[in-house]
Amino acid sequence: MNTARITPPRRGRPGYDLESLLAVAVKVFNERGYEATSMEDLSRRLGITKSAIYYHVSSKDELLRLAVDRALNGLFEAADAAAAMEGRAIDRLEHLVRSSVHVLVERLPFVTLLLRVRGNTAVERRALARRREFDRLVSDLVEQAEAEGDVRPDVDPAVTSRLVFGLVNSLIEWYRPRGGMGADALADAVCKIAFDGLRQDRPT
Amino acid sequence: MNTARITPPRRGRPGYDLESLLAVAVKVFNERGYEATSMEDLSRRLGITKSAIYYHVSSKDELLRLAVDRALNGLFEAADAAAAMEGRAIDRLEHLVRSSVHVLVERLPFVTLLLRVRGNTAVERRALARRREFDRLVSDLVEQAEAEGDVRPDVDPAVTSRLVFGLVNSLIEWYRPRGGMGADALADAVCKIAFDGLRQDRPT
Repeated sequence: MNTARITPPRRGRPGYDLESLLAVAVKVFNERGYEATSMEDLSRRLGITKSAIYYHVSSKDELLRLAVDRALNGLFEAADAAAAMEGRAIDRLEHLVRSSVHVLVERLPFVTLLLRVRGNTAVERRALARRREFDRLVSDLVEQAEAEGDVRPDVDPAVTSRLVFGLVNSLIEWYRPRGGMGADALADAVCKIAFDGLRQDRPT
Repeated sequence: MNTARITPPRRGRPGYDLESLLAVAVKVFNERGYEATSMEDLSRRLGITKSAIYYHVSSKDELLRLAVDRALNGLFEAADAAAAMEGRAIDRLEHLVRSSVHVLVERLPFVTLLLRVRGNTAVERRALARRREFDRLVSDLVEQAEAEGDVRPDVDPAVTSRLVFGLVNSLIEWYRPRGGMGADALADAVCKIAFDGLRQDRPT
């Protein structure tokens, strides 16, 4: 073993910046639940004092806001990119589903936290409102694609969009980036099932 | 207003049997999280003493076990019924998806609680083990249906079954029986999207 490896000097011990502090906080929130986690718990887990945490954020609420915004901003960027595309709504929809899978894979702990928010605080209610806004964008796309004849008309567009994003969101329950399939393969699988279904030969 | 309406006599006040006690407990667990709910909280919400609760169950853990078993037993009955069917695996799979949607609608609070179990206690770990067993049954069915040429071979059967049941399970996030669509219509929508996809015309 090479003990001579040089580690860069770090201020303080263990030395968190906002980013690494947020990562640990989100991990703890996901494990124990946001409600059930106190600043005391966070300070113990981080191995730093509560005032060291307050150096970075004013409250547990602010940690939550930063975390869920990380997820929401990713999803809204994906929606903006889809909206800016030319062509048929079904292609924009497929693009949005695909890039949402990427957001989910890249920001898994943040999206996991977002999807568990229940609306008990102002920060949570704001997150739920933004989620509803995103859902409306998806539902509008489905409706437009249906009007263009590309989406089956025998399921309500609101229900279709909920089912499809239910499928996307359910990835947080089992997908683990390490050792699992890559984001591209996962997005392919999601799009195949959501757009064309699992059935191989269907009577038309 | 008719104040002369006769209400049936009730023992005690408010008078819970195990069934109604369980219903309230599950509601509180779903609102606040199982971990964060104490027997004290339950006793306050029920408006009865803790010893009145202990008359019915020995612990909070037992309430959880009874509740998640309500969900799991429903799902395993559905799996048994599907397994007993004659014919192709894809039809058994569709039957299982359809009846799982029914279990979910009829036992929504119990399934919701089950799907949020994290594995912190023996009861939770047992619930997770039974969920994995159910997932294996689904995955076996998908594999069999693929071997019979009825399921698209370009997605791994384990991934396909996770996506389909992810879609089913995501119903707990938005479906509300009251005022919403009925269980049959919901099961139809789920099966259409999962088996044939949302796309209307596809090039083959």
